[in-house]
Amino acid sequence: MKLHMVTRNQGKFREASLELSKFGIELLQIPDDKVELQSDDVSEIALFAARQAYARHRVPLVVDDTGLYIESLNGFPGPYSSYVLRKIGLQGVLRLLDGVTNRRACFRTAVAYVDGTEESLFTGETCGFIVEAPRGSLGFGYDPIFVPEGSNRTFAEMSVEEKNALSHRGRALRALGSWLASRSQSNR
Amino acid sequence: MKLHMVTRNQGKFREASLELSKFGIELLQIPDDKVELQSDDVSEIALFAARQAYARHRVPLVVDDTGLYIESLNGFPGPYSSYVLRKIGLQGVLRLLDGVTNRRACFRTAVAYVDGTEESLFTGETCGFIVEAPRGSLGFGYDPIFVPEGSNRTFAEMSVEEKNALSHRGRALRALGSWLASRSQSNR
Repeated sequence: MKLHMVTRNQGKFREASLELSKFGIELLQIPDDKVELQSDDVSEIALFAARQAYARHRVPLVVDDTGLYIESLNGFPGPYSSYVLRKIGLQGVLRLLDGVTNRRACFRTAVAYVDGTEESLFTGETCGFIVEAPRGSLGFGYDPIFVPEGSNRTFAEMSVEEKNALSHRGRALRALGSWLASRSQSNR
Repeated sequence: MKLHMVTRNQGKFREASLELSKFGIELLQIPDDKVELQSDDVSEIALFAARQAYARHRVPLVVDDTGLYIESLNGFPGPYSSYVLRKIGLQGVLRLLDGVTNRRACFRTAVAYVDGTEESLFTGETCGFIVEAPRGSLGFGYDPIFVPEGSNRTFAEMSVEEKNALSHRGRALRALGSWLASRSQSNR
C-alpha cells in the first residue's frame, strides 16, 4: 500500500517511513509546507493541514503535527515548537529553564489521515524531562535536550529504531499502521 | 457608518474604536476567537481570519493581527506574540534578552477588511526598543516593555490617544479610516 506524507522535515519522514514499512506501507513524501492553524491542539492543526493538503493533491495522505509541552513554562512552546526552535534555538529554551527545578515535559504528536472519504486521527504522547545541556547528534528538533521517562539517554542519542519504540511519533504511527492494515484486510 | 471588529482583546477594540470614530465610523465588537494561520506574515494571518469570520457573520468586518519582532531573537515572538506572552510572560521575554545589547524591536499590525465584495489590507509598523524592566500600567500585551523611537516612555505609560499617534495599530487604522471615508464619499 502507498501513502503520502506532507512534510519538509526529513527527520519526521525517516521515522514515519521506517515505522510504516513494518505494516507493509510504502511512504512517499510531498515536500510542501503545511497550512497550519494557530491552536493549542496538535490534533486540530494536523487535521486542518491534512484537509488543505488533500484538497490540493487528491491522494491519500497524512500530516504529522507535534509539540513539546514544558510543564514549568505552561506548555510552551507547544504547537509552535518548530517556530520557536528556528527563532531562539535550544539555547533560548534552556535559558528559560535556567535555575528551574521542574524539568518535566511531554511531546505530543497527532497524525491526521485524509483520503477524500475517510478522516482519522492518531495520537501519541511521551513524557520525560529536559536536560541541562544538549547531548547527541541523531534525531532532530528538541531531541538533544529531551530524555524520555525510564531512559537516561536523550532522543538524539538513540537510533531511529530506538527512538520510535519510545516516542510520541512512534506511538501515533503504530496506531495509524494497525488501522490501515486492518482496513486493507477487511477490504479484501 | 458601522463596522464590526472580530476580537476578544478589549485593548485592541478600545484603540480601534477611538481612532475610527474620527472618521465617523462606529465600531461594534464581535467577541469571537479568530481562526488563525501559522505564518510569519501578519497580513496573511489577518486576511485568512477575516475571510473565515465573514463566512460566519456576513457583515462588513475587520480583523487585526499584530506581532512584536525582536531583532536579536530573529523576529521572535512575531505573529505568536500573544501566545508567547500567555505562556512565558514579559519576564520570559526579558530573560531571553538578558545581557543582550541589541534591544531593537518592531511592532507590525495588519488590519484586514472583508465585506463579501471587497477585501483590503492596511498595515502599520513602529520600531523602537525593549526596556530592561516593565514600566507603566496602561495599554496591554508588550506595551510595558516597548519604547517607540523618539520617545522615552513605554506604550504602557501613554494614553490611548498618545499611543495611537505613534503606534503600528494607529497607523494601520488611519489608513483603513481614510480608505473607508473616501469610499463612502465616492459612493454618494
